[in-house]
Amino acid sequence: MTRTSIGILGAGQLGRMLAISGAQLGFKIELLHDEDSPCAGEVASYQKASLSDEQTIKAFAAKHSVTTAEFENVPLSVLSWASESGKLFPPPPAFAVAQDRLLEKELAQKLGIKTPRFAPVSSLAELESAFASLGAGKFVLKTRSLGYDGKGQARINAASEIAAAWTSIGERPAILEEFFPFESEVSCIVARSTRGEIKAYDLCQNTHQSGILVKTSVEPNHPLQLAAVAVVEKVLSKLNYSGVLTVEFFVKNGELYFNELAPRVHNSGHWTIEGAETSQFENHLRAILGLPLGSTKIRGNKVEMLNILGTAPKLEEVLKEENLHLHLYGKEERPGRKIGHLTKIYW
Amino acid sequence: MTRTSIGILGAGQLGRMLAISGAQLGFKIELLHDEDSPCAGEVASYQKASLSDEQTIKAFAAKHSVTTAEFENVPLSVLSWASESGKLFPPPPAFAVAQDRLLEKELAQKLGIKTPRFAPVSSLAELESAFASLGAGKFVLKTRSLGYDGKGQARINAASEIAAAWTSIGERPAILEEFFPFESEVSCIVARSTRGEIKAYDLCQNTHQSGILVKTSVEPNHPLQLAAVAVVEKVLSKLNYSGVLTVEFFVKNGELYFNELAPRVHNSGHWTIEGAETSQFENHLRAILGLPLGSTKIRGNKVEMLNILGTAPKLEEVLKEENLHLHLYGKEERPGRKIGHLTKIYW
Repeated sequence: MTRTSIGILGAGQLGRMLAISGAQLGFKIELLHDEDSPCAGEVASYQKASLSDEQTIKAFAAKHSVTTAEFENVPLSVLSWASESGKLFPPPPAFAVAQDRLLEKELAQKLGIKTPRFAPVSSLAELESAFASLGAGKFVLKTRSLGYDGKGQARINAASEIAAAWTSIGERPAILEEFFPFESEVSCIVARSTRGEIKAYDLCQNTHQSGILVKTSVEPNHPLQLAAVAVVEKVLSKLNYSGVLTVEFFVKNGELYFNELAPRVHNSGHWTIEGAETSQFENHLRAILGLPLGSTKIRGNKVEMLNILGTAPKLEEVLKEENLHLHLYGKEERPGRKIGHLTKIYW
Repeated sequence: MTRTSIGILGAGQLGRMLAISGAQLGFKIELLHDEDSPCAGEVASYQKASLSDEQTIKAFAAKHSVTTAEFENVPLSVLSWASESGKLFPPPPAFAVAQDRLLEKELAQKLGIKTPRFAPVSSLAELESAFASLGAGKFVLKTRSLGYDGKGQARINAASEIAAAWTSIGERPAILEEFFPFESEVSCIVARSTRGEIKAYDLCQNTHQSGILVKTSVEPNHPLQLAAVAVVEKVLSKLNYSGVLTVEFFVKNGELYFNELAPRVHNSGHWTIEGAETSQFENHLRAILGLPLGSTKIRGNKVEMLNILGTAPKLEEVLKEENLHLHLYGKEERPGRKIGHLTKIYW
């Protein structure tokens, strides 16, 4: 039997958890990125290469059974080179959409999915007319690309703040969005295999602080489960998607509003390692290899995931608690940095 | 915080699963062995070195927070060099005992633990008198050291077979044991930390074929659970042991008879990865680091582990079954070789 080998673009904690998951199934894993000592490089082969090295990227994708990516902002050129192999999943258009807040919202709109009010902005004049046209409310101006964790964004509560906001985001192509008065945030993580099989995890209830996920809580039978999965299925189908896809929603008055999507395993799905029958990492690999998907059933009555930011907890304290599972990514401590997570299962 | 680093002597599948388990807790893992491409080298740093290179072994143990071993027959010289660091667990005497079938049985006897009848043999004359003295029954002659999976053994059913048996085991120091008419075989896996904390897993019911473990089955509340743990605790205490220790027993008429011990995580404990709250691998690492041990509670009503020998199963078939967890070790297929295992949880 020829050994299955998986190429992963990127080598952060998501790559680390994908690699561990793939190793358990006996796959050969190789990661590629441009960092010196990325945390995933500790648990699998790691090839350091420039992401602008076309030949290396092509050779990398060509030699593996399949290639995937563990970070959202893979340059589209890299995806294009890798996809020449015919073995890159998810498909590049999913990344193109995920990397552009305007394309994301427009895709949702096109599919008849509710979103917060929004308008495209490519100049100060357009920003002014967008602000005037969107109606009453508070707004947030976001660059279309490469903003994350609260960067590249500016609040606009009044017309007088428009010019400063435009300057503060660097006068880059942007989207003006209603600052959405949500009651809660949920994410829906769904795997779709290259054979079209689909399995969804239970909805994740997420808590952010300063734009960073701090906590995910999951209970079976969320009232919006079916509605959310129906939305994600539309997106999967439209993008002809294979792999794990995550869609984040706002919830208001019992309704879902599309916020954004991630063409990959997701921080809000880390609970699935111990909290679900099959983890999002294993199901992503199964999906892109065209293997049967594993059960996504939750274990226990409730699962909570807490991100560990900045500083590792005292192992003596954490490890003595029952049903609490610690994950550290081997990353150096640094204020605010995601260096691990804890998963608590309530039986 | 200084990063915890763990040195592992050996780099087979036990090392691979230890390394994966340690990586999830954020530990830095390094394996050392003399093979070119051992399967654990895929998931952690690997140092190839001769096991007779004293300086390398000493330096290896000195630089890690703790050092442990993943195979039983680590040369005692290697253990002696590594233990100069003061950070080698389990302690070398546990290996000395495990590597010698006679010392093993004598230890049990000294502790008042029932064993099959046995007698030491160091010459043909001694073998003859041992055979005469042990009474009626069938017997097996085993070399004291370095026999495993049925090698280095010869059956003796009658006095006429004595000479041939002595020749067939190479006339090496041996032990003559009653060929024990057991009803079943169980193993008891217990973790003891450097702080003296002890946690035991549920008894594993084992099935061997041709001396190789093929299946382990575990259900809570085995009637011999307490008796088995009491025996293992005596051994742990006598050996001043830290880490996971496995003791294999025969069962006859509802009583336990000591068979052998392994100073390490054990094939019959692979079910603990998905089938217990904390795996034997994680608990071994916690134990040798002096961290609180994790719960050893079984998940579900029953767990079964099947070894995969020789040939990998068709992934399409295996992965479509619910509650079945596949592990492959990245080893080449070869007749009879342990290349993976399956764990089935019955909820």
